[in-house]
Order: sequence, then C-alpha cells, then structure tokens
Amino acid sequence: MKQYLEHHPWKIIEPGFDSENQLLSESIFSLGNGYMGQRANFEEEYSGETLQGNYMAGVYYPDKTVVGWWKIGYPEYFAKVLNSTNWLGIDIKVDGQVLDLAKCRVEKFQRILNMKEGYLSREFIAEFSNGNRLKVNACRFISMARPEIAAIRYSVKALNFEGKLEITPYLDGDVINQDANYGEKFWDQVAGDINDGRGYLLLKTKKLDFHICTAMDCQIRKNGQELRPDLDKIKNEKYIANKYFLDIQQNDEVTLFKYIASTSSRYYQVGELIAETSCQSRKAAELGFDNLLAEQSAAWGEIWQKSDIKIEGDTAAQQGIRFNIFQLNQTYTGEDERLNIGPKGFTGEKYGGSTYWDTEGFCLPFYLSTADQSVAKNLLLYRYRHLEKAQENAARLGFSGGAALYPMVTMNGEESHNEWEITFEEIHRNGAIAYAIYNYVNYTGDYSYLADYGLEVLIAIARFWAQRVNYSEKKNKYVILGVTGPNEYENNVNNNWYTNRIAVWTLEYTLEVMDYLKQEYPESLAKFKEKVSFKPEEINKWHDIINKMYYPIDEEEGIFLQQDNYLDKEQLLVSELVKKELPLNQHWSWDRILRSCFLKQADVLQGLYFLEDKYDLETIRRNFRFYEARTVHESSLSPSVHAVLAARIGDYQKAYEMYLRTSRLDLDNYNNDTEDGCHITSMAGTWLAIVQGFGGLRIRDNTLILNPFLPEKWSSYSFKINYRGALVNIMVGLEGLTIQNESKNDIEIKVYDKEYHLAGDGQLKIKDYKQG
Amino acid sequence: MKQYLEHHPWKIIEPGFDSENQLLSESIFSLGNGYMGQRANFEEEYSGETLQGNYMAGVYYPDKTVVGWWKIGYPEYFAKVLNSTNWLGIDIKVDGQVLDLAKCRVEKFQRILNMKEGYLSREFIAEFSNGNRLKVNACRFISMARPEIAAIRYSVKALNFEGKLEITPYLDGDVINQDANYGEKFWDQVAGDINDGRGYLLLKTKKLDFHICTAMDCQIRKNGQELRPDLDKIKNEKYIANKYFLDIQQNDEVTLFKYIASTSSRYYQVGELIAETSCQSRKAAELGFDNLLAEQSAAWGEIWQKSDIKIEGDTAAQQGIRFNIFQLNQTYTGEDERLNIGPKGFTGEKYGGSTYWDTEGFCLPFYLSTADQSVAKNLLLYRYRHLEKAQENAARLGFSGGAALYPMVTMNGEESHNEWEITFEEIHRNGAIAYAIYNYVNYTGDYSYLADYGLEVLIAIARFWAQRVNYSEKKNKYVILGVTGPNEYENNVNNNWYTNRIAVWTLEYTLEVMDYLKQEYPESLAKFKEKVSFKPEEINKWHDIINKMYYPIDEEEGIFLQQDNYLDKEQLLVSELVKKELPLNQHWSWDRILRSCFLKQADVLQGLYFLEDKYDLETIRRNFRFYEARTVHESSLSPSVHAVLAARIGDYQKAYEMYLRTSRLDLDNYNNDTEDGCHITSMAGTWLAIVQGFGGLRIRDNTLILNPFLPEKWSSYSFKINYRGALVNIMVGLEGLTIQNESKNDIEIKVYDKEYHLAGDGQLKIKDYKQG
Repeated sequence: MKQYLEHHPWKIIEPGFDSENQLLSESIFSLGNGYMGQRANFEEEYSGETLQGNYMAGVYYPDKTVVGWWKIGYPEYFAKVLNSTNWLGIDIKVDGQVLDLAKCRVEKFQRILNMKEGYLSREFIAEFSNGNRLKVNACRFISMARPEIAAIRYSVKALNFEGKLEITPYLDGDVINQDANYGEKFWDQVAGDINDGRGYLLLKTKKLDFHICTAMDCQIRKNGQELRPDLDKIKNEKYIANKYFLDIQQNDEVTLFKYIASTSSRYYQVGELIAETSCQSRKAAELGFDNLLAEQSAAWGEIWQKSDIKIEGDTAAQQGIRFNIFQLNQTYTGEDERLNIGPKGFTGEKYGGSTYWDTEGFCLPFYLSTADQSVAKNLLLYRYRHLEKAQENAARLGFSGGAALYPMVTMNGEESHNEWEITFEEIHRNGAIAYAIYNYVNYTGDYSYLADYGLEVLIAIARFWAQRVNYSEKKNKYVILGVTGPNEYENNVNNNWYTNRIAVWTLEYTLEVMDYLKQEYPESLAKFKEKVSFKPEEINKWHDIINKMYYPIDEEEGIFLQQDNYLDKEQLLVSELVKKELPLNQHWSWDRILRSCFLKQADVLQGLYFLEDKYDLETIRRNFRFYEARTVHESSLSPSVHAVLAARIGDYQKAYEMYLRTSRLDLDNYNNDTEDGCHITSMAGTWLAIVQGFGGLRIRDNTLILNPFLPEKWSSYSFKINYRGALVNIMVGLEGLTIQNESKNDIEIKVYDKEYHLAGDGQLKIKDYKQG
Repeated sequence: MKQYLEHHPWKIIEPGFDSENQLLSESIFSLGNGYMGQRANFEEEYSGETLQGNYMAGVYYPDKTVVGWWKIGYPEYFAKVLNSTNWLGIDIKVDGQVLDLAKCRVEKFQRILNMKEGYLSREFIAEFSNGNRLKVNACRFISMARPEIAAIRYSVKALNFEGKLEITPYLDGDVINQDANYGEKFWDQVAGDINDGRGYLLLKTKKLDFHICTAMDCQIRKNGQELRPDLDKIKNEKYIANKYFLDIQQNDEVTLFKYIASTSSRYYQVGELIAETSCQSRKAAELGFDNLLAEQSAAWGEIWQKSDIKIEGDTAAQQGIRFNIFQLNQTYTGEDERLNIGPKGFTGEKYGGSTYWDTEGFCLPFYLSTADQSVAKNLLLYRYRHLEKAQENAARLGFSGGAALYPMVTMNGEESHNEWEITFEEIHRNGAIAYAIYNYVNYTGDYSYLADYGLEVLIAIARFWAQRVNYSEKKNKYVILGVTGPNEYENNVNNNWYTNRIAVWTLEYTLEVMDYLKQEYPESLAKFKEKVSFKPEEINKWHDIINKMYYPIDEEEGIFLQQDNYLDKEQLLVSELVKKELPLNQHWSWDRILRSCFLKQADVLQGLYFLEDKYDLETIRRNFRFYEARTVHESSLSPSVHAVLAARIGDYQKAYEMYLRTSRLDLDNYNNDTEDGCHITSMAGTWLAIVQGFGGLRIRDNTLILNPFLPEKWSSYSFKINYRGALVNIMVGLEGLTIQNESKNDIEIKVYDKEYHLAGDGQLKIKDYKQG
C-alpha cells in the first residue's frame, strides 16, 4: 500500500519527485494504444532504479523454458512479449553535466497522466552541482488516431546561466528483457542509419524473424524559432542518435520535437518497413505536435463518450475507475484478432504479455459493453484461429479425435506455461473459452457467430470434456480427477465443483447450439459436422455425462463443495487469520496453503457467477456466505466476482467492500507489486463490480436488465453501455435513476423487474432506487 | 536394454570396443572405496562421448536452485557432490600422434572389472593412421585398505615401429559438473606445484571452502627397468603435469606407475593438506603397485567373506548379484557417520550424490547383514546429527515445538529438493527414518541406541505427525491431507494409506520406546524429556491420533486404499497397457500418469512390507494381488518389495520375476539410463529380494527366522549374514538347506517355523526345502 498520488477526477498526478516511487510510477503512468506501449521511463538519462520497457503487441520471443524438474508435456519455450527499441531517449548535457534526476537536485516536479486527452506530461527544475538551474517541460503521447505514431515535446530552459547545451535524441535497440530466462538479448540489427534530424533502426528477433523498424524525425526550436544547430551523427550497433550542440543564454528555452513511427513485419513486408516507417515519421513531423495532440484528444474523447463511468461524491473512486478504463483501452483496441490482453498490458514484463483465461473470464464483458461489437468478436476469433493448436496441445497430452485443450498461457496458440498443476490441470479455462461464446452471443444477439465459427470451437471443447471425464464404478457417476480450479491454492484435486459444472454446461450449451443451428442454419451445421467428422454417438455420450456427472455437495451446509473432501480440511475463517500472516502467499509455505481451507478465489462462486440464472437466490446466498468467509482474495481477479454476487444477494455493503479491494489496486499499490506492471485484466473486474454489481446489468432473453443500487458513500454514478447498437447511459443518483438512450435505436429494458420500452433518444426516469 | 557384457561369476567383461557403449561402461566399470570414486573414464585422451567423473564423498557444492516458478519454502540451493580433480589422466603421444580410441583403429580391446579383487584392467592394440601399432595394458584400483590412495599401472608397447613416445601423467582440477545449474565451475586453485615425477594440486570450492589436495607420484620403467627420462614440467591454472620424452624401439614396453593420494579438509586442517597428501603418495610409491594391489585383493577378500552371495546354475544371476554387492561396498563403507549413500554412488552426477529415503527404506538391511553393526549405526547417526536441521526445516514449513521433517534430499541435513509435491509432501520419508531405528534395534538388539540417540529422533518425528494430521469434523477422524506417497505417480493426495499408517506406527513405536526406557533406562528417558521439553499431554494427543486415525479401505475388495477415492479412477491393469507405451514416464504426459490408476511403486505394499508382522497372510495376499496388477515398477526400488511379499504369500514365480527386474538393471541397461550412473540404492533391493525374499530372512523377538525357497532355474544359492556377532552362511540347494555358523557365537534360529539352537561353528542341515 502506497498513496503518493493526488486525487483528481481525470488526472493521475505525482507531486514531487521521490526516486523510491519511480518503478511504481513507471507502471502507473504507462502509455499505450493497443498497438504499442511503454512504461513511463524518463526521456533523459536516469541512473536510479528503473525498468525500461517499450513493447509492440504481438511481437514476442520463444524463450527457452526454465524448469527445475521436467515433466512430459511441458512446452519447450515461454513466449514473451519483447522489450523492443527504446524510442523515448533524449540525453541532455549542460556544460558537460548530464541531466539525471538521480543526481541533480529536483524541484517543482510534477508528473501528470491526462486520461481525458491521453497524454503524459512532466515538469521540474533540475539544479546541477555547479548551481545551473534548468527547467524542463516534457509531454508525450502514443497516438490513438495513428497507431504507429508517437510524439514527444521536450523543452529545457536555462533559468540562471548561459552555457553549452547538448541534446541527443536517439533510438536504442540494444535492450534486454528483464525476465529473459538466460540473460539473452533477443534482437539483431538488420539496418540502421542516421542523417540530419532523421534516422531509423531495423531490427529482427533472433528467433521467428519478427522485424521492427523504428524511425525518428527531430526538430529543434529555440524560443519558438526553428533552428538547425550543429550536430554529430552517431551510429553504433543497434543505436542511432543525433547530438545537437547549442549555446544558450539565460531564459532561453530550447524545445525538441521527436516524432516516432514504429512498424513491424506483422503488418508489412520486411522490404517495405524502412520506407513505410520513414514516411510515417515524416508525415507526423509535417503535421506537427499540436495537430497530432488534437487528434489524440479527439480520439480519447470518443472512447470516453462510449465508456466513461462517472462517480460523484468520491474523487478517489472516480479516479480509480477512469484509470482502469483508460488502461484497458490503452492495452487492447480490438482491431487485430491476432492480439489479446496480457495481464500486465504494456506496463511491465511479468507474465510475458501472454493471454490467460482472464480475457474470457473477466475482460470480455468490458469490451462487449464499451466498444464496438467487432472488438469482442475479435477476442473470440483469437481463440477460433488457435483451435488447431489447441487440438495439437490436447493430442500431446493424450487426447484424440479433435478434442481441444486451449493453453493456459499463450501468445500464438501454443502452450507457454510449465507448472504441471496449472499447465495440465487448470482445464477450467476450456470452460471459460466456451462460456465466452455464450456470453458474446447472449449480449450481442449475433447468432451468426455460432454458425460461422462458434460451434466448431464448442465441439472441440466438448470432445475434450467427454474424454477428460472418467466413469467411476464406485460412484456410478462420471468424475473429473486431477484438476486445479481457478483457486490455485488447491492443486490436483478431484471433482472440483466448478470444473465439473462448467464441463457439463459446455456439453449442454454445445447441444443447444447444435439444436439451434439445426433450425436456423442447417447448412452450417452440416458443414461443421462434416468438417469435424461428427458422430451421432457423441451426442449420446454427452447426454450420458450430463445426466450422470458427479457433483460434490454438502447437504448439511447446503453448499456445493470446492472439491471432493473439502470439508476434511480444518474449517477456519479468514477472520481468524493473524493479520501479519496476510497475504498467505507471502508468509505460508506452499504445502500449508494447499492444505488449508483458504481460497485464493472461490471456484464455486465463479461458477455461480457464470451460471447465476440457473440457481435460486438462496443457493447463491448460502454458497456466498460459506466461501466468502474462506476466501483471501489473493488473486486480483477474485473480488469482482464477489462484488457482483454480493450485490445479487442484496449485501450492498459487502459488494462495495469487494469493489474497494480492486478499484485502486495499482494507484495505491495495494498488493505491493505494481512496480512489475499494472494489473490490467483485474481492471476489467473493477468495471464488472460497478456495472454488473452496483448496476445489476444482465442480458437475459434479449432483454437488458438493470437492478442498480447506489453505494452509501457516493452521491451518484453513471455508466454507459453499448447494447445492440444503442448507447445507453445509466445514471444512478439520490434523485433516482435516469436511463438515457443516446442512440436512435429502441431497446427493451427491465429495471427492478419492471419492463420498459426505451425509444431512441428516449429517457427513462425512475424515482425509486436502492441504496447500500 | 543392452547386453554387450560377457557373463562371468566374478568379472564384468567388455569384449571389444564400441564407442556407443562408452558412457554405459564408464558407469558400470566405476571404482570407489566409500571415500572417493570415479567413473571408468580412460586414462588417455578420449575425444568421443564421455562423462568425466571423479568424486569425493561428502565434498559438495550448494548450487543455486533452478526452478520455473518459485514456491515459498523452496531451498535456495541443491547440494551436489562435486566433480573434482581428475587424477586419472595420462596422455600418450607416439611420433606426434595422440592415442585416442575415438580416432585410432582399436583391436583386441578388453575391459575387465575384477570384482573379487577390486581392480579395473584394460588392454587393447591401437593402430595410428601412420600404421604404428601400440599395445596398451592398463590396470588401476582405488584402495580399500588405504582410503586416500589409488594407483594406476599403464603400459604401452611398440608392436611394429620405433619412434618418439611422450607420456604425460597429469592432475586436472579444471573440471565442471555436467549437472551444474548455471554452467559454473565450482573450484578455485589454492596451490599447485610440479617437480620431477611428483606434483600436487590444492583446490578449494567457491562456496563452503571445501579443500581437496591431490598428489601424484610417478615412476617410469622401460622393459622392466626403472628409468628417468627427460621431462617437461607443466603448471597451468588448476593443472599440473609431467611430460616424459622417450625413444622406443620395436617391442619396447614402457610402463608408467601413477600413485595418487587425495585428501580433503573434511579430515585434515587445510594447512596440513599439502604435506599429508604428498607423504601419502610417496608412501604409496614406496610400497609399489604390486604390494598395494595385494592389500586391495585381501581387503576385498574380507568383504566377500562376509557378504558374498553364491548362485549356481545361473552365471548371469551370479554376476548380477555380485556386481550389486560390489557396488554397494564401493559406495559406502560406514566409517564416517557424516556420509551416506547417494542413489548413483560415485558412478554419475544424477541426483547430486545426495541422501534420499532409499537409505532407510532399502539399503539399511544390506549393511545390517553384511557389515559390522557400527556401519548401520552410522547410517542412523547421520540422521541423528541432522535432527536440528530437520527441526529447522519443519519450522520453515510452519511446524513448531521441535517437530522435525527430515529433508527429501540432503547432503548436510538441509533440504536440497525443489518440487513442491515431493519436497513438501513426501513426508512418508519421516516414517522410514523412524522405522530404520526400529529395524536397526530389532536386528541388532542394540537397545542402548534408543537410550543414547533413538528416542530424541522419534519424539521429533512423532511431534511432526501430531501436527501434520488434522481432525476432520466430517469424518470424526484424524486425516492427513496433501501428501505424496512413495508412489510419485500420484501427488498431493489425501489419506495415503501408507503415510497414515506409518505416521501412526511412529507414534505407537515412540510410545513403546518410552515405556521401554522407563523400565530399562529411566535416566535416559528423563534426560530426553527435559531436553525436548516433553509435555505429558503430548502422549494423550498421540493416543488420540492412534485411536482415531482414518484409513481409506475398500470393504468390497478387502484392500487398503492407495489414497482417498483411489477407486474413482478408471481401474485398468498393467496387462492391458500397450507395450510400446511403457515405461509410462517416457510416453505419457504427466497429468495422464497422475490420473491413471497405475503405480510407480505400490505404497500399500511398502507399508505391508515394513509392518508385515501386523497383518495376516490373507490381507497381504489380497492387497498384493490388487496392487501388483496395477504397478508398473518405474521406480527401480519397487520390484524388491514385491519380490519379498510375493515370496511371503508363496508366489515364488512372481518373486523370481520381480527379482529379475532389478538383478541386472545396470549390467543390461534395463531402463536405458545407466549412462547417467548405476542405480546404487536399488542394488540393495536386489539383495533384499534374495535374502528376505528367497531366503525369507526375518528377525522377530530376537530370533533369526528363515523360510528359504530355491528358484526353479537355480541349482543352489547361498548368502551370508552377520547377525549379532555371528556370521551365518545359509546354503540352499537341491539337497536341502545347510546353515553354517562360521563364528564362535551360538544363535537361536527358526527355519520353516521350527526352532533350532545353532552353536558356534555348528552346522544345521535340513533335507526339506521349497522350490519355486
């Protein structure tokens, strides 16, 4: 926990410089546009502790696996997003002294992330050891309007001296991933050149031949006047720079504009990259910083127009939710179906920038509600494109006949993870990937997706479940042995209720989809069946499993059991834990965690969250009470599900408490690990807590359902959702609810169990509201 | 499986040279004397595939742990026995051409391990590319009589040429462990010098400051006459050598004698090492090769006198069992209580040369029966000395109050292993360590051990079990959750029958020992109680656990269950497995192995083996039949337990079949992994199969019990055991049994349930015998 940032509804503000906060701020003030991103490193040299990070989505490296003890089935490598060319750098020297905030005396430092307009600015006065005082003003952004463009404006002003100034903007491709398994550098230079004010670097990865070309176009002004100072051209291996020499008088202000273009072989032929990149950076320079920034501001304006959540009466909460929405939009824009959402986005290296089930479990609803339908669809297509790899993955583990097991962690569809209890056993991810198809279709009504893509994935996953169960002669039931649920604090368990339930749900849903297609898209169904060599007896087997699946339950407590024999554990409550032993994962040995009844996140509740409409409120309430008391929420994904379910059972205090646990997770460094990067996928959970929890948003039978309550501490809040072509603004305040249809399309809506027709541009006001 | 060695009762013979077999032969022909050992590398240069290995017992390095994903509780390092100074090397050059069996044409190659006398010899003719033919005759041994001494005799004879010969005996400390986690070299040079024919190297390890000094003393003879040829003295970092220059005529034979002494800071002050080592190597040189070899032959004669097993009618079996006895004696002599038995001994690096529960589970009975009582006692004292470390280990995992968890793998008492499901969960090892105390006392009658040391260890282990159980309110029983049994093909299971049973047995035995000491050694008991702050309520708790322990059983099958819900697995039999999928651990993914019912070794049978006298024959038979059919024996330790139990239930065919699986495991490279080193600890299992299985040896109530049968394919076999000061030779043949007391001490003996008194030097002949 660290609270050093100022509260502000639209800005993240760091007042004053403390090198202790630098790693943290580098994560929090990160910039990105879905295509590329970077940690908030300083432009000028910084000799203090820093984690340099510049990333391009989808440009990764298969880093040879590190493992203590090999198990058959482990992947040979872990695919990780690469730290690539640092295009940020601008070295400053004044009379031979280097500007370095770790060495200068720093005054009036302020760093601001302007979330409304999407830029990062920084100003400070640095005093050198000789007493020279330099005022610096820097501003930069990565363009949302032009994905391959970024721009920096960097001004220095001599406050009390005259002297020689050197400004050295550079591109540096000689970077390393901090998480490289064997300390290897992943990039080789292909080409690089530097001319007056312009230069480029073309690099390629040592494996897989990803090429990235980065170009810079620099302009200098002195006191507002364009200038062409003397310069040196520096060209080293994987490094190019211009070094400008200027004489400055007191009060002179020198401004460098650095326009960056960065392209990759993911979108262009390798032979085109130098030309394409150079043209783009020139174009950016021609447009100029102010015009580009105006575009940026407009682009973010559009995003906020669709996705803003407003909270009145609580600036910290307002800042928190906007920060989350901001970062989610910076991470993924949904234009490229080959991309996905890494748990740290572009804000750090941890987890390798790869895809986890977080996307389907937590992020999908955010993009469904706040972005164009195509964005969520692309998240689904990502898995559709990986189907063959998922089938190969299952085959490697001994499954056959087109069964698919999607990887736990992946970049390109291949498994990257290597911990047997997770890689091989967290098979529930397959269920979440199937559920995402349901979720998308249920939300959008885009049934054609099932006919075009969905069923093929569903059949492959259903086939996996049908082989992964085995029939227990003892129980006369199907069982699923040797799994790890989302709760990774139990490994290799039998009959994890959630896994069994989501397996059966997948079979049920697949059959339902097949019935639907038989009616509505018979040709598609026939095509799929032929493609996957579907056999009628498969349906019988699925029905048999559905009918005879074993679920661990406890009649006495009236609950579904986390897994077989869960109640053999010593039944303690989180409230009985010694505070200083929390979080358990930093204090208890692993076996103690495994043996204890404490849950990282509650699997049964995850199941009840997904399948809420299949269970009555009492069942949900009993399970919630039981598991909530045993859940330590040491997964940042956990509290959101609890918030939604707490709201569902009317426990608004608990819902709000759960919301608080993640809303400012990174801004307040709640888990003391934001230095590594922000918890991007958990941010979607915070959004869920407000929209599905406080707002009670559901889509059932093609109807938009709302059951909002107003948290006690807030005077109002509002959120917008994109629902089937309509933009709906839901405002919840002390005067009641206002639901504004900001589109031309009519929608059907149900609020507090009452149905309404909301016409295009129409408004619905309901005096009544709940408070919690 | 590879059968290229000739069968011979006393020798291992490799006829002809095939570089494909070199790694394998390097393991099989290894030499050792408990103090040091080496793989059977060639003296002369060899550019083919080889694993160089020279080891000194107890000289290890804490190599930084490699792990994919860290868990709290993992040790920081893995202690591994070090590859240390190569003292073997003798480079040979003839007219500028290097003798290298990978490059010369090789004829009449023969390598022989003479197990009776304890030396390794090799002869061959090498033809160089210029047609020169050189006959080589090499012989070496590591002295059993003088632990720090080794000697090499290396002769070369010019068969068809005259020319210049260079002989370069050297010491090379610039070695690396093949299994070094980070490719690091572990040794630094402290001192080294070379003079005419003599030199030494003093090295120290980069961590822990182990010092090893190795000295060589060389003599040259030409056609039997001592010679002092011209020589160069070479002294590089961690390397010293003499290079001798000789002119040889056709039929000249030049012989180099290389006398080695190797001492370490484990036994001397660092400052003494150079002098001590130099004096020892001179002394050896003075004694000369033939005298040293005569000593060696006599020392091995004594060993065989006490431990030989003779088999008639099956040379392969005879060779197999002698090889096992030979290797066990080479690995551990029991003189130093700080040493133990690594699974590969001195024959390879795998498993780091550390101590596993193999020692207590399998090796102890071998040393009890074939060596002085002090040897087995030292194995117990090894653990006694590590008690404090075992308590620290338990404390790190959250246990308190003096509870001890002995490490899974250790060199110095600290845990070296880092796989959570083994390191933290294979707690059954604690049971085996307690059982070893019982085993020792039961065999030797040395009850004073309990009073001097044993009880302290037992109490600490009992305290561990008392904390490791938890009370299940659901079952109204104590349960043990989250363990891995000896069968490592199931991880993190609940209520592994064997673990629960051995836990309760430990409590029972500890209470029994306390009762005994109360009667016989009341002062010892009082002293222990005070030392460990024993509380009377601990006894109550232990009784409660003994009375209320939960054991998984299946009434229908009438068996003890491997673990909770074992019968939920698909119940297949090994006979139904596809042959080409065996061994499973080379063909199935890890999760598939975990889910299957197949056992690497059968835990229930391990328990019935240890606690055989507590179960009736029908119970043993039912469990044996059930688990034998599901056991794939992919632990080389597994078949021995099956052999003993099969014999117990009268299934002699099965007992013999199980014996065959390990008797020539390394000689025939049965598991295709002997290149890494021999399976030293499994060799004790083969001995158990014959002595406890075929011979039916037990000690109960201070009586020696025998129930021998004669395998169908053998005409006779005999084994000797050291029992309470008596050396007893048990001969089983077609004419019946002959039991010869080769000592002066009378013993009580029970054969086929009939009691006999066997006087000193007496003989018992029994016409009756069983055949199987």
